Order: sequence, then structure tokens, then C-alpha cells
Amino acid sequence: MFDPVEKLKEFIRHPSVSTDPKFREGMKGAQEFVSSLLRSLGFSVDVVATKLHPIIFAQRAGEKHWPHLLIYGHYDVQPADPLALWKTPAFEPTVIGNRIYGRGAADNKGPLLTNIAAVAQALEDNPKLPLRITFLVEGEEEMGSPSFPKFLEAYADKLKEADFVYLSDTALPNENQVVLTSGLRGLALLDVHVTGPNGDLHSGLHGGVLLNPIQALAEILATLHTPEGRVNVPGFYDDVLDVHPWERDELKKLGADEKAYAQFLGIDTFYTTPGFSPFESVRFQPTLEFNGIGGGYQGEGTKTVIPSKAFAKISCRLVPNQQPDVIKQRVMDAIRARAPKGVKVDFVDQHKGDPYVVVPPGRSNTPTDQSPVLARAFRAAEQAVTEVWGRPPIYLREGGSVPIIADIKRKTGLDSVMFGLFLPEDNLHAPNESFNLDVMKKGIETTRRMLVTLAKG
Amino acid sequence: MFDPVEKLKEFIRHPSVSTDPKFREGMKGAQEFVSSLLRSLGFSVDVVATKLHPIIFAQRAGEKHWPHLLIYGHYDVQPADPLALWKTPAFEPTVIGNRIYGRGAADNKGPLLTNIAAVAQALEDNPKLPLRITFLVEGEEEMGSPSFPKFLEAYADKLKEADFVYLSDTALPNENQVVLTSGLRGLALLDVHVTGPNGDLHSGLHGGVLLNPIQALAEILATLHTPEGRVNVPGFYDDVLDVHPWERDELKKLGADEKAYAQFLGIDTFYTTPGFSPFESVRFQPTLEFNGIGGGYQGEGTKTVIPSKAFAKISCRLVPNQQPDVIKQRVMDAIRARAPKGVKVDFVDQHKGDPYVVVPPGRSNTPTDQSPVLARAFRAAEQAVTEVWGRPPIYLREGGSVPIIADIKRKTGLDSVMFGLFLPEDNLHAPNESFNLDVMKKGIETTRRMLVTLAKG
Repeated sequence: MFDPVEKLKEFIRHPSVSTDPKFREGMKGAQEFVSSLLRSLGFSVDVVATKLHPIIFAQRAGEKHWPHLLIYGHYDVQPADPLALWKTPAFEPTVIGNRIYGRGAADNKGPLLTNIAAVAQALEDNPKLPLRITFLVEGEEEMGSPSFPKFLEAYADKLKEADFVYLSDTALPNENQVVLTSGLRGLALLDVHVTGPNGDLHSGLHGGVLLNPIQALAEILATLHTPEGRVNVPGFYDDVLDVHPWERDELKKLGADEKAYAQFLGIDTFYTTPGFSPFESVRFQPTLEFNGIGGGYQGEGTKTVIPSKAFAKISCRLVPNQQPDVIKQRVMDAIRARAPKGVKVDFVDQHKGDPYVVVPPGRSNTPTDQSPVLARAFRAAEQAVTEVWGRPPIYLREGGSVPIIADIKRKTGLDSVMFGLFLPEDNLHAPNESFNLDVMKKGIETTRRMLVTLAKG
Repeated sequence: MFDPVEKLKEFIRHPSVSTDPKFREGMKGAQEFVSSLLRSLGFSVDVVATKLHPIIFAQRAGEKHWPHLLIYGHYDVQPADPLALWKTPAFEPTVIGNRIYGRGAADNKGPLLTNIAAVAQALEDNPKLPLRITFLVEGEEEMGSPSFPKFLEAYADKLKEADFVYLSDTALPNENQVVLTSGLRGLALLDVHVTGPNGDLHSGLHGGVLLNPIQALAEILATLHTPEGRVNVPGFYDDVLDVHPWERDELKKLGADEKAYAQFLGIDTFYTTPGFSPFESVRFQPTLEFNGIGGGYQGEGTKTVIPSKAFAKISCRLVPNQQPDVIKQRVMDAIRARAPKGVKVDFVDQHKGDPYVVVPPGRSNTPTDQSPVLARAFRAAEQAVTEVWGRPPIYLREGGSVPIIADIKRKTGLDSVMFGLFLPEDNLHAPNESFNLDVMKKGIETTRRMLVTLAKG
């Protein structure tokens, strides 16, 4: 078996930022890295061209009655900026203690490689393992998977041959407690642009005459939340799914510590949906966040200008059963209705994703028609986690989003077993992202055991 | 006499952005250009070193009883960004029709060169012209003249030898009507920084838990104006000087057209201090503007991050008798009082400048102790303007700021005759700045005649 840490270093060295055309080479490198690794394990690899970054579709053939799992992952990463805040180079993997630092280490290169390594080990131990395995590794997750719908259309029948999806692109609450993720938030993203005068103006010659677009934007954004922490958009909460009692029971098992969490975030006050603790709010409630804002002069010193334009990047995290298009429309309607006179408001539509929920076997609301192989997979994962980590996993919805999970469900009916592997301190989407190598080691062993148990039938 | 247009091209080619250390060479080039031009006219030139950009102090000696004017100008320019919006290169002067395009063309290189050319012509016509002339040309006007107070301290006695200051760093309302500026607004500038979590956070993993600093900043900024257009800071208007009746009469002479002004700005609604027309508001009322805002991800596509920080650049234009330090304190107090819990607010103090007012001779509120040479200078300027432009000048306060004018008054008692030369369409501080070459030609002739009349005693 290959050395997983050395392989992960190789993987991170390919700067695979999907959203930025400057990183085309890095994207290609990362794709070829995954493709050739899977080929070396005996998979037949299909690199499916898309308009932008290809999707890797790799299969291990087997007999029809064998269980068939579809392992999902992505080879692209978030932009690394602001680069100045990185303590080690973003694309030069650096091991310090039991952590490996680098953009993508935790999201999703480390966890994906964990599952590839588990497959490699299981097949090395038993080359005749009675299990069908398909890898589906995309390169556009961090940009909202724009090519995925078309791929899904073309490959739906092939995907339907699988029994369930398996992935590690969700979180562990801490090093000792595994979570099998039972739900994901969706996404609705858009940019709002406010335009005032037809060009930047001297604030002395024209200041006091017209509405500054930065002021207009601030006034609009300030209306979008209540002081108590609710999103102040009409109809925003209409379709929010109630929390099932067993979900609250599972969350209690987490024993999460608010004080430690506040300290980790560096804040002294939480700001949650009223009636929800921070841990409930992030898992069970939707948000409207400002991911970026810009306008006018942002350099050193001063420039006494009234800018022509200002903009903000807005993203909503959605919970079942909110629909991204409905929410986008409601947010745009609210903004248009509240925009002051004297400025023009435009929107740039960005990507979106449906929320997702899966109920493990044996719960009050488990679907009666749940796939028996999915149920066995959940039980095999529970057993493997209990053996390797010394305690059973808990089932929790989480705040993050993997929109294609809901897309696959809608198109093929396949549900997902989500084995979380990254930790809160891994700094996903932020400078100094890292991945815990102990978690990686235990993750490989857990998935390996799950595969072996599942293969036993 | 040199060709003023060719000389202006030379001047613009030196990219003299004072606020940005990258332009050190351009600053040096512009300084040497002015120094050597004045030397070639027979001035004894003193390049006074400062901590940053030197001040040019150049004198033409003469007899003690001759009138003595101090001509002020600046050789530095505003940053040229956003460069993408320039139709011709910012530092490559381009003549199109009767306009010359380039950063600094109108602020202040064209107007300064107009006055230098007028002096050159007057001295060529009469090398023995009985007039003492001092040039004071600084290189830090666009950054708030940080070195000027120290210079003023050291050179106060020399400056006091002059009778008045003469400058062209204010505006013409249109090509046909000269304004002698009777007042300038002051400035109070500061940046506000809002800090939330101790690093950027993944908006899925942590969204819904804490106050986003962009949201906090928007909520703060949104409180700083009333919907009607007043600055909503306690005490902000306490020291605002009433408008004298003759000032309103002069403004009427302007015959300014609101519809044309709105069209020029590209807006459909004015937003002024209630009770003031746009033309009154910009001249007689203070403002609080947002010159820039930034935070989080501003690139293409999306990055689902909760940023750690957000900031805004604030500038207030002040009118007599507001005091910059008092206003800064009141703005900071209001922001601190209104900042929501869960974020930290800090300020970066930027520069400031006092407002200024000068009353021409013969008005209801002309000071009884006004310098007779200043009164003669105003009359000489009125006569020259009437001859060259076909109609007398009007006296108006304007919205812009030349803070050192108030500093000189406070330190030396000298008042200023401000002969406006740039037009609203000159795009000062904005992309595609330009200067009208017909205005330049008439400006040279006006100042030349004023000098000759003044020398007659």
C-alpha cells in the first residue's frame, strides 16, 4: 500500500482552485493525480469532459448481486487568499506535529484520500473482495458544481446501479467523536450591486448632493436581519423543517461546550436564531450571510471619492425543505422593496444547492422503503466506528453543504452515508487549512472495516 | 515664452501619486520639473526637504514696497485607480479636441502651470515688473499635507512678508463664468474597522452562530444619516455658520440648472440637506461620506466565508466654523455607541483640515481690518476676469477643500484670492481626468492682467 501522507502531500501540491482560471494547470494536475491513483488500484477510469473541469468516473467491476457503493469526493479547492495570513505556503504541504497544512488538506483532499487508501488496503488484503465500487470525483464542488447536472443526466442510469453513496466531506465535532451526517444545508447565493452616479465623483465638488451607493448598500443590508438574529425577509422561514426529537437527543450526546466554542471563534457573544443554541442554530436553522463587500477606495491612506458602485456577496444556508430559487426570489424582492431612491439595484445570480436529509435505520421517521443495502451500510459504519474510535457514532445534521448529494438523491434515489473527517480547527475555506493525520489514520481503518463488513453481506 | 500645453504634457508624464510609495520616482520628477521651470524664470528656488515629499519655495526678489503675492499650488496627484476605467493612459497626456486628458491635468497641474505661464509672460513683457512673487508648491496636498505644519512653523516669518495668497485649485461652474472662491470646506477623515471572529470562518460550519462583521458594519453605517439626508450624529451641525444674504444673491447669479446637473451626475434624485438646493447644499452644508468599504471575498464567483473583519473609509466635509477634531470625536462616539454586541470597533485616524472663508471688499461682513493689498488684488482680479471672460466673476464658497489655506490664515494672517479654473466635467479624483485648454489660455491671460494691474499700485 502507498504511504497515505506522502500521497496527500503530492495531491496538495497541485493548486487546484476551480473558480480561478489562473489555476488551470493545478486543476489538471490534481485530476491526473486522482485518475492515475485509481487506475493503479485496478479501476477503469473514465475522465468525463465538461465545459470546465472534468469529472472522474472510475469503476471496479463485479458481480451483479454484490453490494455497490459510490464513493464521492472532489479534487478542487477554495481560493487560498488572503495569502498574507498563511503561516506556511498554501500549496506547499507542511507537516507540523500530527497535522498537515495546505489549501485543500481537509476540504476535500485529505478525506478523499482517506477513502481511496481504505479501498486500496481492503483490495490489497483481499483482491477478490465481493464489492462493487464506483468513484465519482468532481472538480467543481467549490464553485457550485455547474457541470454536474448535465453529467447526472447522462450518467443517471449508471449511478442507479449503485446502492448508496459514501463520502467524507463533512465534519467531526472533535477528535474522539465520529458523526454520521444525517443532513446538509443547501445554498442560495447571489451578489447585489448598487449603482449611484455614472462615475466616481470628487466628494468635495459633489458631496452633499446625491446618495452615496455605499450608504445605500449599507442601509439595504442593515434591514436583512432583526437585532435578535432572525433573517428579516418575508417568508424566509416558511418551509423550515421541524427538528425531530431524536435529533435533539443525538445533539445532547455531543456534550458540546459553548464557552469553548466561543473561545475557539474568538467572540464574546453568540448571535443565533432566537430559541436555538449555537449548536442547534448551525444545524437546524437557515442563515443569510454577507461573504464579501466592496466599493470605492480600499487602499492605504485616503481618496475622497464618492464611488459610482458598491456590491455585496450574499449566501443563504438553507435547511430542508427550503427551496433555493424561492429563497433567492424572496431575498431579491426584499432588497428591491427596501432600496432607497436615487440608486439602481442589480443582482448577479450565483450558484445554489438543495438541502438534504437522510434518516438512519430504526428511527421514528425512517422511511419504510429504505434500501436494505443502505441500512446495512449504516450498521457496518456504526460497527467500524465503534471498534476503531471506542465509541459509537452519533447522527447529526450539519451546517455545511454538499449540494450534489441532494441532486443525486433527486435524480437517482440514492441516499448518502456521510462519514465526517474534518475538525472545527481545520480552518476550512480559511488561511492555514490543515488536516489531522491521526484522524486520517483512523478514518482509513474505519472505512476499510466498513467495506469488509459490507462485503460479507 | 514656453508653450504651456507642451509643458503641461511634460508635467503630467511624471506620475506623482503622493500617497503611494511606488510612485517615488514620479514625485521626484514632478518636483524637479517645477523647480527647474521656476529657476528658468529667474526665481531663486529652495527645495525644502520634509519627512516625505519636499516643498518648493521659490522667490523673485524685489523692493519692499512692491506688492507681494504668494502663489500656491501642488505637484502631487490622486491615485489613478481604477485604471481599467481610463480611456487613455492616466500618465500619458492625450489631447482630444480642446481637452488634455491625464491624472492631475486639472488637479492641480494644469491650473498651477496656468499661473506659472502668466508669471512667465508678465516677466517677459516687463522684466522689471514691480511685483514680489513667491511660489509655494507642495507635494502632499492629496494626502492631507502632513509635512505642511512643520514647514509653516519654520517659514511663517518669510510667508508673512507676502500680502496675500493667490491660487487656482478651485472650480469654475461652467466655461463662461469665473468664480472667485470665498470659502472652502474642511475635512475630517477616519477609517472604521469592525472585527468579529479571530479568523475567516466557513459559513456552513459556523454560519448562524455569530454576528458577521460585514453585517455589523452595515448596521452601523446605516445609522449615520437620516432618510431625509441629514447626518445623524449628535452635535454634528452645532457650529455650522449661517449663510449671509449676499452669498445667496451671488449663487442666484450662477443660474445653475438642476436638471442638467442631475443628468451630468447620472442620477434621477438629489439627496441633500433638507432645506438646501443641491447647489446650496454642496457649498454651505457639511457631509459625511463613505469613500470606500471592504471586507471578505470580493473576487469572481463565490467564497462562502464569514470574514473576520470589515472596514469603511469615512470623510466629512466641514463648513465654517466646524472643527475637525470635534467632529471626528462625535462621529467616533456615535459609532461606538451604536456598534452591536459581538464585534469590536477600532478607528484609524486619517488627515483633517479646517474650513475657510474670505469675504471680498465692500460686503456687509467684510472685515474692517482687511489688507489693502488684498482688496486691490480682488479688484484687479475682478477687472481682469471681466476683460478676458466678458463678464465679472461671482463670489462663492465651494464644496472642495484646500486645508492649507486655513492653516496659512491661522498661522500668518494671510487671506487667499482663489481663481477657480477646473470645470465639473474635468473628472477630478476620478478616471479620465482632463483640463480644458481654452480655460487654460484664458486663465493665463487673466492672471497676467491681474499681475500687471496689481503692479501699477
